[in-house]
Amino acid sequence: MAAERMVVIGGDAAGMSAASQARRMRGPEELEIVAFERGHFSSYSACGIPYWVGGDVSGPGDLIARTPEEHRARAIDLRMRTEAVEIDVAGQRVRVRDLSDGTEGWTGFDKLVIATGARPVRPALPGIDAPGVHGVQTLDDGQALLDTLGCTEGRRAVVVGAGYIGVEMAEALLKRGYQVTVVYRGDQPMATLDPDMGRLVHEAMDGLGITAVGGTAVTGVRTGADGRVRAVVTDAGEYPADVVVLGIGVEPETTLARAAGLPLGPHGGLLTDLAMRVRGHENIWAGGDCVEVLDLISGSTRHIALGTHANKHGQIIGANAGGGYATFPGVVGTAVSKVCDLEIARTGLREKDARRAGLQFVTATIESTNSAGYYPDAAVMTVKMLAERRTGRLLGTQIVGREGAAKRVDIAAVALTAGMTVEAMTTLDLGYAPPFSPVWDPVLVAARKATTVVRKAGV
Amino acid sequence: MAAERMVVIGGDAAGMSAASQARRMRGPEELEIVAFERGHFSSYSACGIPYWVGGDVSGPGDLIARTPEEHRARAIDLRMRTEAVEIDVAGQRVRVRDLSDGTEGWTGFDKLVIATGARPVRPALPGIDAPGVHGVQTLDDGQALLDTLGCTEGRRAVVVGAGYIGVEMAEALLKRGYQVTVVYRGDQPMATLDPDMGRLVHEAMDGLGITAVGGTAVTGVRTGADGRVRAVVTDAGEYPADVVVLGIGVEPETTLARAAGLPLGPHGGLLTDLAMRVRGHENIWAGGDCVEVLDLISGSTRHIALGTHANKHGQIIGANAGGGYATFPGVVGTAVSKVCDLEIARTGLREKDARRAGLQFVTATIESTNSAGYYPDAAVMTVKMLAERRTGRLLGTQIVGREGAAKRVDIAAVALTAGMTVEAMTTLDLGYAPPFSPVWDPVLVAARKATTVVRKAGV
Repeated sequence: MAAERMVVIGGDAAGMSAASQARRMRGPEELEIVAFERGHFSSYSACGIPYWVGGDVSGPGDLIARTPEEHRARAIDLRMRTEAVEIDVAGQRVRVRDLSDGTEGWTGFDKLVIATGARPVRPALPGIDAPGVHGVQTLDDGQALLDTLGCTEGRRAVVVGAGYIGVEMAEALLKRGYQVTVVYRGDQPMATLDPDMGRLVHEAMDGLGITAVGGTAVTGVRTGADGRVRAVVTDAGEYPADVVVLGIGVEPETTLARAAGLPLGPHGGLLTDLAMRVRGHENIWAGGDCVEVLDLISGSTRHIALGTHANKHGQIIGANAGGGYATFPGVVGTAVSKVCDLEIARTGLREKDARRAGLQFVTATIESTNSAGYYPDAAVMTVKMLAERRTGRLLGTQIVGREGAAKRVDIAAVALTAGMTVEAMTTLDLGYAPPFSPVWDPVLVAARKATTVVRKAGV
Repeated sequence: MAAERMVVIGGDAAGMSAASQARRMRGPEELEIVAFERGHFSSYSACGIPYWVGGDVSGPGDLIARTPEEHRARAIDLRMRTEAVEIDVAGQRVRVRDLSDGTEGWTGFDKLVIATGARPVRPALPGIDAPGVHGVQTLDDGQALLDTLGCTEGRRAVVVGAGYIGVEMAEALLKRGYQVTVVYRGDQPMATLDPDMGRLVHEAMDGLGITAVGGTAVTGVRTGADGRVRAVVTDAGEYPADVVVLGIGVEPETTLARAAGLPLGPHGGLLTDLAMRVRGHENIWAGGDCVEVLDLISGSTRHIALGTHANKHGQIIGANAGGGYATFPGVVGTAVSKVCDLEIARTGLREKDARRAGLQFVTATIESTNSAGYYPDAAVMTVKMLAERRTGRLLGTQIVGREGAAKRVDIAAVALTAGMTVEAMTTLDLGYAPPFSPVWDPVLVAARKATTVVRKAGV
């Protein structure tokens, strides 16, 4: 029998990364590792679902990084279709239910990892649970949507929400031959951008033949005699729909944690220390989509559901739970996406985030191209920067453009992490060759303009 | 008459950027600006020549950022085909020759900008000046090469040298239907990379049908009865050639500066202070391909001929000469290139640079992919990192791969500028979405491996 027992709730990115890393550090004779996953799949890329639905990826198997069998072969006792239903913190035990037969029982832990993920926001609207209305959070969700697409004759799709999932699903459905309408509440799609940059996304969606309807609240789903969805009902009329995809966003799945009295933040996510331990608890860690992370620029916590953070959290939790040492310093809020060939990227703060954080700032927006202007297929790239008033410190960057736009935001992500000013950025030694950049990279052009604006704004 | 007179020697990137920026800061009544250019073109992108030769860019006009007329319209007195032949530092005057009629005269300056660029290395070998042997440093060179290509029936091209220009010209000639042989002295192409990374370029060139012949010294050029090139002669035999392109590298064009007693560095480039003033001279600035720049990682000066630096230098010189203030802190040595769809990037130090700088280091090389492994056309990307022993500070990064490889090096360029350790890089918040990156970006994977290697190496 192992000296210690680690229990992991949730068999996806954060949970299984934690389990794998802990196993690398300590053998089965030292640490027993048991993981519970209520779904049918482990360690998969939920971010890949739009590409699976769109046909770029052939099957759910491609999205699975490691199967339950592979985990078990590494001495991780991963139990599928087994749901944790209660955490007894004081008693150091978890009550689990076998979803195949409904049996329940308690299992003890010395170390606990909570990686319960996020759940899609699903407003309590009439008809929202009707057949044909789909979330796309899990592989099970993706399979259900594909089943609907396979058996639906109509070709009208309505996507509710125009964030990352919304625009990616719009592309996927377009690729499958659907007539796609995206209905969203804000003035512009991609509320993760400032409205002026979101407008560029709206224009591009228009150009792609996606009907983007902003400023519109969904009030319900109308169903037919067969109970299936027929239309999305909004405060601005009905949008006929043979299939509806909900991309309104996600929220931390912390039902268990809340019931157990663990500390939650303003966004409903678990709060942890820098070693990813749940605050105030020596032997409980949490990571992935169920936690809030420190935003290094605003100083507040945020909820960001993103596989890359979940994997980092898991790796750090595993190192610590395995007797090593690692910390997660926080995020700067980088996110990239695309709709067909339009690339969308952001990092740091939007204008409203900066205001909320008490920061005064200036902005600069420039248009440049992704390669030298004379190079074939050079395409416009728009870069917006926010810099702190007086200090000129970079606060955020948003980029919309074609090839090469999305990952260019990494330059700003590193500069934000390093606390650089926009003026310091103007002399960054970025890669230049005509196929890859104008002689002044668009990020440098934006930094130059922002520097001028900071100076003009004075003290 | 203006209060002051600024003379600019060289009408390309650095010189004309300096003139333009100075003009933005001070009007013609305050500052007269005269610029001398010995060639036929001003403000052009020499880096674009391979793409012009390869047919991606239609004419030399596309490579010209600003014509002489446009400069003159902004009150910059740009005199083309006029060569500066002597600098009289004490007398604050420059002797210039009108190349159209050979007349000469002295012209005075209050402020002088030296932007004489670089010249291709052209070893004194028999036949090296024969018709059909071309450098590709200026637009005039590019036009001469295209003239040769247009009147040559044979389809055998030999490129001498396998650096950036060499591999880009190999691609260009391949595109024009030539059978291309690249002859170079080192064991691997791209001596700007470590040999292990250069090997990947060699393999890719092989795959593209380019014959890459390494470890071979060119001893001369054999010509035919008509005096034109017939073959490149090497210590390993002859390579038949209907056209030869020299891509051996460039050296600073500092003949005038040397004669004037201005300070030159170990690579033959002018030495400047951080404001780009020639060391020891209050009213003389120099920038672009004729100067040496501070390498921020090694602490030594280097000669790097690259348009993006030249433009930055010019902008900084213009700001200072125009009465403002700006500095160029130095470079980290970023360079990107491609051969067909193979992208090649480096920043920071190679192993031999680090050794020469007295640094002890470890290396880590990883293979990953440019997008999520399951995403269509995901392609291998190889990332090598050098980190300082003990401190784990990043010293250099090299990347070879397909789409998305080249500009990824910018992440490392910013991290180098900020003095980050490879361990700090493991938690960088880089953009993630399946079309753009695996869930662990290849740069993060390399940083993780480098962190482990640093730890294992101990103190």
